[in-house]
Amino acid sequence: MTSSPASTISASMVEPPGFADIEAAAKRLAGVAVVTPLLEFPVLNERLGARVLLKAETMQRTGSFKFRGAYNKISQLSEAARRVGVVAYSSGNHAQGVAAAAALVGTPATIVMPADAPAIKIKNTRGYGAEVVTYDRDRESREEVAEQLLAERRGATLVRPFDDPDIIAGQGTCGLEIARQAEALGVRLDHLLVCCGGGGLTAGCALAVSALSPETVIHTVEPAGFEDTARSLAAGERLANPPGARSFCDALLGPTPGELTFEINRRLVADGLVVDDAEVAEAMAFAFRNLKLGVEPGGAVTLAALLAGKLDVAGKTVAATLSGGNVDPETFGRAIGV
Amino acid sequence: MTSSPASTISASMVEPPGFADIEAAAKRLAGVAVVTPLLEFPVLNERLGARVLLKAETMQRTGSFKFRGAYNKISQLSEAARRVGVVAYSSGNHAQGVAAAAALVGTPATIVMPADAPAIKIKNTRGYGAEVVTYDRDRESREEVAEQLLAERRGATLVRPFDDPDIIAGQGTCGLEIARQAEALGVRLDHLLVCCGGGGLTAGCALAVSALSPETVIHTVEPAGFEDTARSLAAGERLANPPGARSFCDALLGPTPGELTFEINRRLVADGLVVDDAEVAEAMAFAFRNLKLGVEPGGAVTLAALLAGKLDVAGKTVAATLSGGNVDPETFGRAIGV
Repeated sequence: MTSSPASTISASMVEPPGFADIEAAAKRLAGVAVVTPLLEFPVLNERLGARVLLKAETMQRTGSFKFRGAYNKISQLSEAARRVGVVAYSSGNHAQGVAAAAALVGTPATIVMPADAPAIKIKNTRGYGAEVVTYDRDRESREEVAEQLLAERRGATLVRPFDDPDIIAGQGTCGLEIARQAEALGVRLDHLLVCCGGGGLTAGCALAVSALSPETVIHTVEPAGFEDTARSLAAGERLANPPGARSFCDALLGPTPGELTFEINRRLVADGLVVDDAEVAEAMAFAFRNLKLGVEPGGAVTLAALLAGKLDVAGKTVAATLSGGNVDPETFGRAIGV
Repeated sequence: MTSSPASTISASMVEPPGFADIEAAAKRLAGVAVVTPLLEFPVLNERLGARVLLKAETMQRTGSFKFRGAYNKISQLSEAARRVGVVAYSSGNHAQGVAAAAALVGTPATIVMPADAPAIKIKNTRGYGAEVVTYDRDRESREEVAEQLLAERRGATLVRPFDDPDIIAGQGTCGLEIARQAEALGVRLDHLLVCCGGGGLTAGCALAVSALSPETVIHTVEPAGFEDTARSLAAGERLANPPGARSFCDALLGPTPGELTFEINRRLVADGLVVDDAEVAEAMAFAFRNLKLGVEPGGAVTLAALLAGKLDVAGKTVAATLSGGNVDPETFGRAIGV
């Protein structure tokens, strides 16, 4: 018995993707997604005494890596499935990725988003042509709202934010590019740091990078209070976050690691680093002042971990994802000290 | 009779650089300057109906292209000249470029800057170890302040902001990269837009791009009230800006085109485009919202010209410099609508 990806939320019993799935995703994304630059800055290298390569997914279509997985999934839908459309739930970046991918493929998209998501994320999602249904993050379950929509729209396809082999393979193209861009620079990556929510980007990047660069040590980075992956990796089993925590890293506030993503990450990821909001704000300010990059809170956790010295990288070569840049001007202004 | 670059402000009688000088500069800068990315964004291409490649000099060492020329000049100084040091005058980006290059080469730097330069530019210039001497932009001549410093420090080398063959050749490495990066992408550039103050970046880029891609039409972009190069190109002679104009494009407020730079630009540049401050602010906001780039006012004039439709680029391939990103948080916040 296998679950039907089209109609249930659970990912149980689905096979995890492999390296070949990431290569296939890269072919689908060629000419559609941006091959984002792997950036290097003397000012950052000098500050850390390391060689740091930043994968600027802030410059990906829709402003985050999420477009990769969404397009990889949606572009494979049958004609019949495309006529009915897709449903997704998301804190905002997956929403934009799904909305933009659906528009390119020509299928209707309905997205369930928290009412308190950053305004830019809701506005952009609607701007790509999707219908947005908001819910109260403290009182409703986004999965239940999505289930109800799926029941109403028979034949609609659920595009999960992370626990789906096609989504993981799509996000893995980011890791594929990191490994190949590092190789083109002639460097060996000692460490890779990945911004981690449900673990889809981590799992995809871990599959790609561990295949092409097995000596690279892979770390997740999460906001304090939402370090479910860090604790799960240490415990060897999926643990949930205690309720009540708050962080402005809106992209990384999931309750627990995905089933499929954790199955991959428990094998390939060394450990999880944790940063607090003040460290993230300082990283956003550093990125603005010194790198001239606009990074959203959830996308800056890796840089925050490096700047706050959460990992000894002296003399090492380190790659880190800047996973997204969709941040409201007010939030950004506060972080950079306006 | 030739003027001595070490002791007078005038650039008369100095030979303009050629393509070989730019290649030589590129060798000096290899491994020191950043090979900045030539970025492409679907959202910008779709907005303009064109293929737009943005040269992100915002990510150059010191946050602007100015490091290129400064290092090319200062790294060629004799041991004796290095012991005495360098003097420069600058609105802020050349100041940082000279200060950082002097620090790398190991020579003292004294920089004359307007008292109302962006705080980040003065702070960074001091941060690179230079001594900063401020002057009143409305009541004093920076050239005279610099002349006085040169008289006091016998044997000090003046590092001009643009009217120097080594400076122009250094800035030309930006154009060399643009031409080669475009070639690597397999594209032919129909147009090149360059942010223009004294014309050093324009002259260097024009020399490189016209040599490697002679069919490319080159345009300067200036802020309204400071379109001396646009008017000079149209008139065929160097004209000065009328006094009293204001713009927040602090990097581009020079009084007149350089002698040496205009000698090059009159031959190689088609015409000059002009944008007002509101168009520049909108471009800065667009870059933040959609490209996740922090661009300073003077660095955003090219993007402003494109977004405001100052040039018909439909169906064309266009490269544009984003020449710097050194902007105070308050100014940036106002532009992005905080």
